[in-house]
Amino acid sequence: MQPGSQHTVKAFDQDLNELRALISQMGGLAEHSIRESMRCLVQRDREGALKVVEDDKKLDALEAEAERRIVQLIALRAPMADDLREAVAALKIVGVVERIGDYAKNIAKRVPQLDGASSIEPISLLPEMARITAEMVHDVLDAFIERDGDKARAVCERDQAVDDFYNSIFRALLTFMMEDPQSITQSAHLLFVAKNLERIGDHATNVAEMVYFAATGDRMGERQKGLDPSDPQ
Amino acid sequence: MQPGSQHTVKAFDQDLNELRALISQMGGLAEHSIRESMRCLVQRDREGALKVVEDDKKLDALEAEAERRIVQLIALRAPMADDLREAVAALKIVGVVERIGDYAKNIAKRVPQLDGASSIEPISLLPEMARITAEMVHDVLDAFIERDGDKARAVCERDQAVDDFYNSIFRALLTFMMEDPQSITQSAHLLFVAKNLERIGDHATNVAEMVYFAATGDRMGERQKGLDPSDPQ
Repeated sequence: MQPGSQHTVKAFDQDLNELRALISQMGGLAEHSIRESMRCLVQRDREGALKVVEDDKKLDALEAEAERRIVQLIALRAPMADDLREAVAALKIVGVVERIGDYAKNIAKRVPQLDGASSIEPISLLPEMARITAEMVHDVLDAFIERDGDKARAVCERDQAVDDFYNSIFRALLTFMMEDPQSITQSAHLLFVAKNLERIGDHATNVAEMVYFAATGDRMGERQKGLDPSDPQ
Repeated sequence: MQPGSQHTVKAFDQDLNELRALISQMGGLAEHSIRESMRCLVQRDREGALKVVEDDKKLDALEAEAERRIVQLIALRAPMADDLREAVAALKIVGVVERIGDYAKNIAKRVPQLDGASSIEPISLLPEMARITAEMVHDVLDAFIERDGDKARAVCERDQAVDDFYNSIFRALLTFMMEDPQSITQSAHLLFVAKNLERIGDHATNVAEMVYFAATGDRMGERQKGLDPSDPQ
């Protein structure tokens, strides 16, 4: 059952490298969707937002393709221990990247509901928050490709900034709602946009923890994974 | 590489049955967390809510155990085609059930922030919405264990009711916020509670689609998977 021969081992690495390239491509699409959904939100670009929603299908198709290849890789190469764990980790990362794309799509879907919301001041913090999360997605995929534990750790460290942004925006939107009840519907949509970005940060962090573990064999500190932080009171 | 012998095939089925029992146990915990988090929310039971948050660690531990077993199953039994796909599907379902537990935990974490919110009327719809989603989680795990395509389809059909509840609660909470700006903070937390339940319904539906496909070999209609429906305007 052990593949043994160097030929088989090389074939596995070759397959895995192709898979990594595919996952990197998925990450690029997800990152683009985050940036683009936020641009559409700020500029009230309904058509652009529709395109982000439409483009998410590409990410779904790539996820299916990546899954198919991982299953094939396992079936054909019968990888042992570490290699098998790496294939399973790839399967999980693929799922997370698809989910990040879903969050970006959900932001884009709120664009039509924000017409006339140009006066909502807290919206000015959202693009910076989106920029940080898009970078986290970019960097964690780089760390995955390069098996770079330090880079993965650096991604985790940025999640605190995302959480801080989220808390500031949450408070600012609630204050805004109280001061201007007419803004309540639009502010509620922006609350969900902020929450989507906060979740993207969490998911990038989860991937970073997987990459760190794969690269170093150690777990990264005691931070709870994927915590949805309590919103401020 | 083909396992071939009946002995090996039986061993695979035996392993898979044990795995199914473990996943069913996870589903039971997730279902309990949904019901319990909602009870704590309605009764403002802070201690009970802390316990729901604490108990989520059990679900995380079971997820890790299930993953370990699936990887071991693949490594030891080297399953072919359909069996391998079933093992990979189990891996995905395990991840979704863990995520459902996270949503319930997030509901529980909002309990301390709702003290004094007894007058928020839309909250009366939430327990019924929670009841439906907990049932969906229960039934889709049953369908998985029994490989029952019809039961899986019935779970999907109930997701529309969950979405309808979500839309009603979203509108009711926004109206409430406009009429009583003092309720805005608490209402915002309840918006997220409703969204968490809506997402649980989506995840149960996604699992149902996987179970249906595994049981029948057919894809279930054209419904988009895992759609986070646009919130009403």
